[in-house]
Amino acid sequence: MAKKGYFITFEGADGCGKTTQSKLVQKYLEDRGYNTVWTREPGSIGLGQKIRELLLHYDGDVAPRCEAFLFLADRSQNIENLVKPAIQQGKIVICDRHTDSTIAYQGYGRGENIEQLEYLNNLATGGMKPDLTFVFDVSTDIAMTRVGKEKDRMESAGIEFHKKVRNGYLEIAKQETDRVKVINANNSIEQVFEDTKRILDEFLN
Amino acid sequence: MAKKGYFITFEGADGCGKTTQSKLVQKYLEDRGYNTVWTREPGSIGLGQKIRELLLHYDGDVAPRCEAFLFLADRSQNIENLVKPAIQQGKIVICDRHTDSTIAYQGYGRGENIEQLEYLNNLATGGMKPDLTFVFDVSTDIAMTRVGKEKDRMESAGIEFHKKVRNGYLEIAKQETDRVKVINANNSIEQVFEDTKRILDEFLN
Repeated sequence: MAKKGYFITFEGADGCGKTTQSKLVQKYLEDRGYNTVWTREPGSIGLGQKIRELLLHYDGDVAPRCEAFLFLADRSQNIENLVKPAIQQGKIVICDRHTDSTIAYQGYGRGENIEQLEYLNNLATGGMKPDLTFVFDVSTDIAMTRVGKEKDRMESAGIEFHKKVRNGYLEIAKQETDRVKVINANNSIEQVFEDTKRILDEFLN
Repeated sequence: MAKKGYFITFEGADGCGKTTQSKLVQKYLEDRGYNTVWTREPGSIGLGQKIRELLLHYDGDVAPRCEAFLFLADRSQNIENLVKPAIQQGKIVICDRHTDSTIAYQGYGRGENIEQLEYLNNLATGGMKPDLTFVFDVSTDIAMTRVGKEKDRMESAGIEFHKKVRNGYLEIAKQETDRVKVINANNSIEQVFEDTKRILDEFLN
């Protein structure tokens, strides 16, 4: 019997610790014999890395719609050239940011039309949805302290923006309780990882 | 009374001569006292130039949806940061490729859903439409000879693809006869420019 692949996404505001947790989860799964692939949006492989560079480090004016389309371009590339092939091979794909980031950041954060963004997400993924999504929820004060002084273009958008993003994630979680699991990420890395593993183990069993 | 700005787009398959004509038109208008701005898609200003570089010269795999979103990202940037401000200043904006290229290339050429592409174009432009569009129609054989051996990524997609693109443009022109004017671009540069000027003069008077 072929192994079944899964698509698990890690979401949350900047400084929530999702990247750290996603790598701990990858190691945990690999140690238990699963084949995994770690990816991220923006910036998975090839062209995606070049798009990531523009999104995070371009220092001129960026029209809001332009930004949204660049994220979608990267997402299409990630899904088509990395996620789908890996899932077909029975791997567990761990993805640091995905469609919910668009809804939380561009939708709730920047006030773009959420229905339009959902339509666009759906085009970019060809309708593919994550099997499981972790939202690492952290107070904005703690998040800002963790991010520190070396902010990229996205992280520099201000405290109020980040509060809207956080609330956006909590709204998404309320609407999709089966797929989206909220983790209290104000706790220590070890505690957050324990909480994450518990949900992950339930999902895989 | 403030001068009225116009948005004029130049369209057609690769090798149709539209770039040459767009620059002749710009000089013609400037000589007659109009303020003009020349731009292009992809690759107008700033970030658009970096997106153009990816679209035309990236040599790895590019998912079709990724390509479409990159064109749209560039278009949003062009409209918001260049076209709209120039029109508000009463300038004539001359744009080498715009929304019709997406319909002709990704829609008719690559077979993506045309209604979806129109929806996406509309998002990228915020509903703004060109006042006048020239389609330079040239036989695929002549176009291929003109393009020569130094093809970029888009131009290397093959003869059959380019025939579909040409037919796509003619379909668009049939559907929007007021906005879109087809010019026989098999003729000499001089003759094509005469035909273009005649339509342009009618439009401006």
